[in-house]
Amino acid sequence: MAAGSDNTTETPSKADANMQWGGRFAGGPSQIMQAINASIGFDKAMWRQDIAGSLAHAAMLAHTGIISKEDEATIRNGLNSIGQDIEAGNFEFSEALEDIHMNIEARLSDRIGEAGKRLHTARSRNDQVATDFRLWVRDAIDGLDQQVASLMRALAQRAETHASDPMPGFTHLQTAQPVTFGHHLMAYVEMLARDRGRLADTRKRLNECPLGSAALAGTSFPIDRKMTAGLLGFDRPTANSLDSVSDRDFALEYLSALSIMAMHLSRLAEEIVIWCSSPFSFIRLSDAFTTGSSIMPQKRNPDAAELVRAKTGRITGSLVSLLTVMKGLPLAYAKDMQEDKEPVFAATDAAALSLAACDGMIRDMTANTAQMRALAGSGYSTATDIADWLVRVLKTPFRTAHHVTGRLVAKAEAKGVDLAELTLAEMQEEEPGITQDIYSVLTVEASIASRTSEGGTAGSNVQREARKWLDLLNTPTDKA
Amino acid sequence: MAAGSDNTTETPSKADANMQWGGRFAGGPSQIMQAINASIGFDKAMWRQDIAGSLAHAAMLAHTGIISKEDEATIRNGLNSIGQDIEAGNFEFSEALEDIHMNIEARLSDRIGEAGKRLHTARSRNDQVATDFRLWVRDAIDGLDQQVASLMRALAQRAETHASDPMPGFTHLQTAQPVTFGHHLMAYVEMLARDRGRLADTRKRLNECPLGSAALAGTSFPIDRKMTAGLLGFDRPTANSLDSVSDRDFALEYLSALSIMAMHLSRLAEEIVIWCSSPFSFIRLSDAFTTGSSIMPQKRNPDAAELVRAKTGRITGSLVSLLTVMKGLPLAYAKDMQEDKEPVFAATDAAALSLAACDGMIRDMTANTAQMRALAGSGYSTATDIADWLVRVLKTPFRTAHHVTGRLVAKAEAKGVDLAELTLAEMQEEEPGITQDIYSVLTVEASIASRTSEGGTAGSNVQREARKWLDLLNTPTDKA
Amino acid sequence: MAAGSDNTTETPSKADANMQWGGRFAGGPSQIMQAINASIGFDKAMWRQDIAGSLAHAAMLAHTGIISKEDEATIRNGLNSIGQDIEAGNFEFSEALEDIHMNIEARLSDRIGEAGKRLHTARSRNDQVATDFRLWVRDAIDGLDQQVASLMRALAQRAETHASDPMPGFTHLQTAQPVTFGHHLMAYVEMLARDRGRLADTRKRLNECPLGSAALAGTSFPIDRKMTAGLLGFDRPTANSLDSVSDRDFALEYLSALSIMAMHLSRLAEEIVIWCSSPFSFIRLSDAFTTGSSIMPQKRNPDAAELVRAKTGRITGSLVSLLTVMKGLPLAYAKDMQEDKEPVFAATDAAALSLAACDGMIRDMTANTAQMRALAGSGYSTATDIADWLVRVLKTPFRTAHHVTGRLVAKAEAKGVDLAELTLAEMQEEEPGITQDIYSVLTVEASIASRTSEGGTAGSNVQREARKWLDLLNTPTDKA
Amino acid sequence: MAAGSDNTTETPSKADANMQWGGRFAGGPSQIMQAINASIGFDKAMWRQDIAGSLAHAAMLAHTGIISKEDEATIRNGLNSIGQDIEAGNFEFSEALEDIHMNIEARLSDRIGEAGKRLHTARSRNDQVATDFRLWVRDAIDGLDQQVASLMRALAQRAETHASDPMPGFTHLQTAQPVTFGHHLMAYVEMLARDRGRLADTRKRLNECPLGSAALAGTSFPIDRKMTAGLLGFDRPTANSLDSVSDRDFALEYLSALSIMAMHLSRLAEEIVIWCSSPFSFIRLSDAFTTGSSIMPQKRNPDAAELVRAKTGRITGSLVSLLTVMKGLPLAYAKDMQEDKEPVFAATDAAALSLAACDGMIRDMTANTAQMRALAGSGYSTATDIADWLVRVLKTPFRTAHHVTGRLVAKAEAKGVDLAELTLAEMQEEEPGITQDIYSVLTVEASIASRTSEGGTAGSNVQREARKWLDLLNTPTDKA
Repeated sequence: MAAGSDNTTETPSKADANMQWGGRFAGGPSQIMQAINASIGFDKAMWRQDIAGSLAHAAMLAHTGIISKEDEATIRNGLNSIGQDIEAGNFEFSEALEDIHMNIEARLSDRIGEAGKRLHTARSRNDQVATDFRLWVRDAIDGLDQQVASLMRALAQRAETHASDPMPGFTHLQTAQPVTFGHHLMAYVEMLARDRGRLADTRKRLNECPLGSAALAGTSFPIDRKMTAGLLGFDRPTANSLDSVSDRDFALEYLSALSIMAMHLSRLAEEIVIWCSSPFSFIRLSDAFTTGSSIMPQKRNPDAAELVRAKTGRITGSLVSLLTVMKGLPLAYAKDMQEDKEPVFAATDAAALSLAACDGMIRDMTANTAQMRALAGSGYSTATDIADWLVRVLKTPFRTAHHVTGRLVAKAEAKGVDLAELTLAEMQEEEPGITQDIYSVLTVEASIASRTSEGGTAGSNVQREARKWLDLLNTPTDKA
Repeated sequence: MAAGSDNTTETPSKADANMQWGGRFAGGPSQIMQAINASIGFDKAMWRQDIAGSLAHAAMLAHTGIISKEDEATIRNGLNSIGQDIEAGNFEFSEALEDIHMNIEARLSDRIGEAGKRLHTARSRNDQVATDFRLWVRDAIDGLDQQVASLMRALAQRAETHASDPMPGFTHLQTAQPVTFGHHLMAYVEMLARDRGRLADTRKRLNECPLGSAALAGTSFPIDRKMTAGLLGFDRPTANSLDSVSDRDFALEYLSALSIMAMHLSRLAEEIVIWCSSPFSFIRLSDAFTTGSSIMPQKRNPDAAELVRAKTGRITGSLVSLLTVMKGLPLAYAKDMQEDKEPVFAATDAAALSLAACDGMIRDMTANTAQMRALAGSGYSTATDIADWLVRVLKTPFRTAHHVTGRLVAKAEAKGVDLAELTLAEMQEEEPGITQDIYSVLTVEASIASRTSEGGTAGSNVQREARKWLDLLNTPTDKA
Repeated sequence: MAAGSDNTTETPSKADANMQWGGRFAGGPSQIMQAINASIGFDKAMWRQDIAGSLAHAAMLAHTGIISKEDEATIRNGLNSIGQDIEAGNFEFSEALEDIHMNIEARLSDRIGEAGKRLHTARSRNDQVATDFRLWVRDAIDGLDQQVASLMRALAQRAETHASDPMPGFTHLQTAQPVTFGHHLMAYVEMLARDRGRLADTRKRLNECPLGSAALAGTSFPIDRKMTAGLLGFDRPTANSLDSVSDRDFALEYLSALSIMAMHLSRLAEEIVIWCSSPFSFIRLSDAFTTGSSIMPQKRNPDAAELVRAKTGRITGSLVSLLTVMKGLPLAYAKDMQEDKEPVFAATDAAALSLAACDGMIRDMTANTAQMRALAGSGYSTATDIADWLVRVLKTPFRTAHHVTGRLVAKAEAKGVDLAELTLAEMQEEEPGITQDIYSVLTVEASIASRTSEGGTAGSNVQREARKWLDLLNTPTDKA
Repeated sequence: MAAGSDNTTETPSKADANMQWGGRFAGGPSQIMQAINASIGFDKAMWRQDIAGSLAHAAMLAHTGIISKEDEATIRNGLNSIGQDIEAGNFEFSEALEDIHMNIEARLSDRIGEAGKRLHTARSRNDQVATDFRLWVRDAIDGLDQQVASLMRALAQRAETHASDPMPGFTHLQTAQPVTFGHHLMAYVEMLARDRGRLADTRKRLNECPLGSAALAGTSFPIDRKMTAGLLGFDRPTANSLDSVSDRDFALEYLSALSIMAMHLSRLAEEIVIWCSSPFSFIRLSDAFTTGSSIMPQKRNPDAAELVRAKTGRITGSLVSLLTVMKGLPLAYAKDMQEDKEPVFAATDAAALSLAACDGMIRDMTANTAQMRALAGSGYSTATDIADWLVRVLKTPFRTAHHVTGRLVAKAEAKGVDLAELTLAEMQEEEPGITQDIYSVLTVEASIASRTSEGGTAGSNVQREARKWLDLLNTPTDKA
């Protein structure tokens, strides 16, 4: 697609495209095979986990007498120095060595000689990769869990501030009843708390150690799987070697939990986009989380919110990818399972970015409480309060009260006034029992304050809930 | 697409197709709206749950004095009689009344008059449908959980029988090492145990009661949400009314758990299809779970297994459907959420059928142990045992032992014999330290028996695991 | 989940759930197998296609002398009478006969005896079902195509009316530049035109006849596949019998086309929901496509739009279902492929409903042009017009012009005025070359009118495009 | 997750995980925003397309007099030198400049000064990115199309060689009727031909040029969109500016086509895995496309086939990702759409690798025709031929012939013999009309040779089809 000469631009030809494209596999089968088979391009992300797993394995081999204590010390030093090199960016990964496991083991043997050739005793790449990947996912869960907690804290703090600030409560994006902005924000705290619960359950179920399952059948060496499990922070060894090397449930459950969480964040992001749109103008984001342009410096495009909304696609797609990969695979290990990592890595990255962006936006946003308050009272939003008054005071059956209220709303609409602007006489035309007292339930503030049922929008409820969560989220043993 | 006259068949015309198609919306807007809006066609499946919810709500309204005890009794009798009518098939559902909730409430008012109009006090269709749907999913979980336990029992029983029967252990569908058929079956017990764990966690997280959240803001009536929650078997009320009516996490988490379970079943089904194929002939299914044809009565097509394998598609698709529906929905209730039920119902049906079919096939199948045994010893499947012998007895470093073994295998292959058929002299050409003792590890039986590491394939391990699970699954407090 | 006695409601027990659940498979293997295997519950939808296929097949068998003309006449009469019975609702489908094909063939033999037993000569259920399903999908395409054309017509008609009516053009849901409402509506006409193109391409590729491929290998009978293909309106027979019975590309391509179309409709639906929300109030839908409640009769919930937005979930989920089903299936026919129909039927239904609802809503909506016009001019929406003026008149480089404009906008914002309210002197402070002429490009109307580039929003463009499409859509040769 | 001291390995703590994790966003909002917002990390893949688009745009601006010819020449030289730098790896991409478009434009202005600031006249990043991405997808289609053609050629060549070599034709992975290996391979040629058709249709529909749509409304400059469209090889400009910047149909249609193609390849890959499994042993792959291990050098794990089978997951997941992203997006451009590229890039890479691997494997594989031939005759695979003989010779109604054959098969099975080993007398017990002639249809070769119906498996058919395709694929007018 190069440029032409003189004054003309050449039409990009198919030949160009093909040259760009075709060269890649010109090297024939070996090049194709290396390109499709090698995983080092992405699985090097697991280097910490691979070294940790090997250290634990070597310690166990020495403890059980399968290798000598001297060999173990040599291996340990070798692995630690490799780890330092990788950390420092001084390790050259080789595609010919295919994956992170062989890259590290080969380098180890280069450095320490014969002892390095003893490390792989009583294990196989199959249980090794299963162990490393579990460790990686467990680390990711721990990292994301802290991010979720931080976002919950941000939401609860804002909710506490706005515990009693009215906003229109929408159903169908139509004003239904007044709620408080704090109450609305606390809804997301509940969602995220469930997300943490799912991550915690995934972690719990994941936390069994496949190391020692070997290729698929276990081993004849007198290994101590409880020891390696313990050293790596697992609760126990897995129970069936065939299952151990062919199981990717932990990755799928993790991706499911992320997919649901991403859906939650997409809802929050959609609301932020709508709230920032000028007809709504419920909130304002600073330049930190918006983009403008040199030409419209006043414009604040909520790019971060839009990207959060979009990233739910990547995460759901990753879940579908891995479910598709695993469908119908015979036991035990199949190379198909190498396609497990990229979706998990991509989804983790998308989730971490989304959480960070939401956290930042919630802390950053300025609420336009006057605008929300104004809209909260429009649209006959306290109609339900009339119906409830009729039921409570006049003992009208609910469905009947509903119909009476409907007639009052229709009357107000016909007159172009608010409910509170109907005269008592006008009200009594529809229901003679109505008294002056009914006006006390017609304000936004009265409506909100009356919703004291458990979980209801009354400011006192919201205040208490926000406080409860903030206390939970700040305790040192934080498990909330 | 009707038939033509005489000897000719008319080409089916587009006009025909359109007539067949178009008539449906000829009635104009009202017909379109009813067709897209009404949910009674599927949500009538929740009639039991709707009645249960209303009974609990009415009991609470009476207990708190919001309605009278007499009204509650009238409502209760009315609802029970409606339940009996539906059960007996004597209830005509009306599409004009849109959904199961209005169908039942309208009928109630018809039957019992004014008391019926009081039932909906302090609730809304939004919290009502959320409650009903949770109850339905909870029931589905309980039903499926029993089916999973039954399938685990079937697998463990077969595993106990075949605890020591050799089969080729495959990686990449290539013979790798001998395992036992029982060990292979027990791998599925582990998978299913995790599935039960996920269902149990979903149930636990689901088990909060949204009733009393009303439309979205809670209510001003002095309701007792703990009471309704308790009456309906929930652990507690939900904590935020906005979240309560806009949350479908429980359905998504349920569909995620089913998707992973369906993936497991698809793997078992794939194996059954392959095992039944004549080149494998590992198992035989009876006529009960196969189809033949009048022309090839000996053919046993594993239709049930193929359908199980396929149904993972429906279940994963249902998960994607609901994740897509929920993406980017502003709070609180939106009509989009009405699209939650059909995917859940369809996935539940597919899961229940798949479990029943797998359960039936596992109990039905006949294992061809001779064929499995014969194949288990082919392909130099005990090569690893040589390497392990070299490490254990000669203290050869593992990687070196690996290479020595590779040369022995190559030599055997070149001669066209099994490893055990190499003479000691031939072996010693590659490694002088080899002694006669090495022949003791070359049989399938020795190989299997030696894999005694925790989770390994040794018959004693498999026996113990099968027994452990059967004991767990038979205990009356069965929570396994 | 029955009600308790007295004042208490019994906690619904697991036992209840299980009774409700378990009974279904109590009949043992045969009941399970029938439940999972039978397809008549859904494939009866293809009865017209099955009869059409059999009529064509019989005509060909007679034409080639494989059966007698008398037998063919008998078969034809039998099939036609069965068709009439099904149409009239007088046909009892049997689950024991599994599918629509056996239901019809068995009834045919019952009615006409021996001739009926000759119908299945030189075909198999495998090619029969492939043929029927293609015919069904082709009919569905033809039906949906007409619906899409109708919706395009509705959009173009509204666009013609509103060709020059300003509305704010959004990017990021932030006002960017003025456009016309007609231009916005015409964007959907373009999307839908591509949808029709995809449906047409799918139809073209689908339109080959698998009949005569028999079970998988073709047949030894001297059949005339071109004849059956022609009788059924196919362009030609398929070219490879193995492919013919194992191919479901047509269904997948159809579901892909529907998924993209549903995505388009979800965008339109989202816009309708937002436009109906009171802060926007761009349009108003009548009662025909909204729901209110007895209590808030003024509220117009855009239920139909929300359901359209949601139904994209069902359609995408269906595509995922079938892609999952087909993944990794060995040739030729496998029973897995029976899971092809329900996703296609469900997606078709969702698509037809969505199109009908959108069509109805577009025709029904009332545009609030005053509100759109007012918003179109806010937010410094004509800033770009200043920059373009600077480039055009002063020959300022574009990026420089951009920055100058940015400073003018910032100045206006600081003063709290519109761009047109800046004095010439104020403008000249930023760019001395600015003249009075610049004010002529600052109005919404001038901005819109100037965008005459091909595809631009100028009213004349929109008018011409709307007219072009209306002419295309109304011509008799329109495929619609 | 560092190693401990002495003999112990420290339990990896949550604190470690968090340090590894948390540092990333420590820089606060600006770092978060840059991380989520910048696309240069992946969109630099479009640098050729971006330069090509700018060259065409500049040529048009000069042609229409919007910029001077001198400026255009300066711009052209600048862009070409940037292109050379990128090609040579001498271009440093800046994350602060966000995307490929700003990276190139900023560098251009650095190099050539004021002329560079004129390049962006009459366009916007919105139409620029839409144009670049279309060009990229079009190039990808052209590249993949050649790969598909190459794979078809490989299949047809192998099919020609094995046109008459018998193999068992499977349904349900059970032997049904004999087919030829060539016929089986040609089924994939048909599938891939449809894939090419879908790619070609996608290309055709994609091939309209959005450049000149500007931000969303078109422009007031007198641009010539036909000229830029022509220079870039597009058929015409797009028709609606709003649609142009918010349309990603081309990417979705492309991903749909790839998903269906990947499904085809997954089926071929599954067959290769099964065929390589020792009980089948239908084919053998060389070391080029398999992996062994040092310990089992004889083992040939079909890794490449397994990875092809798995990569369908990535591709389907990418489609789901982008469908999810686009769901419910209001017009026009939204930042969500930036999430379009990574799924497309990842899916393209997976598709190109999969095609290359399949191409390589098909050319590499050795067919074990003896094994296939032996299995082709087992399982009473010629039973259908008996039934057809009865219909053809004795005029038995097909269904009756079917039942007679079933009894013959049952008799042979009971005796443990093949059909051809039944005596004439034994046959006549079931059907007295049977003559010696029937034995002529019972061999595998006779069965195959008789299937001469169009598309049937007869060797002559296969030969002709393979030749037809090879001719088509080699003709110079072949689009491939």
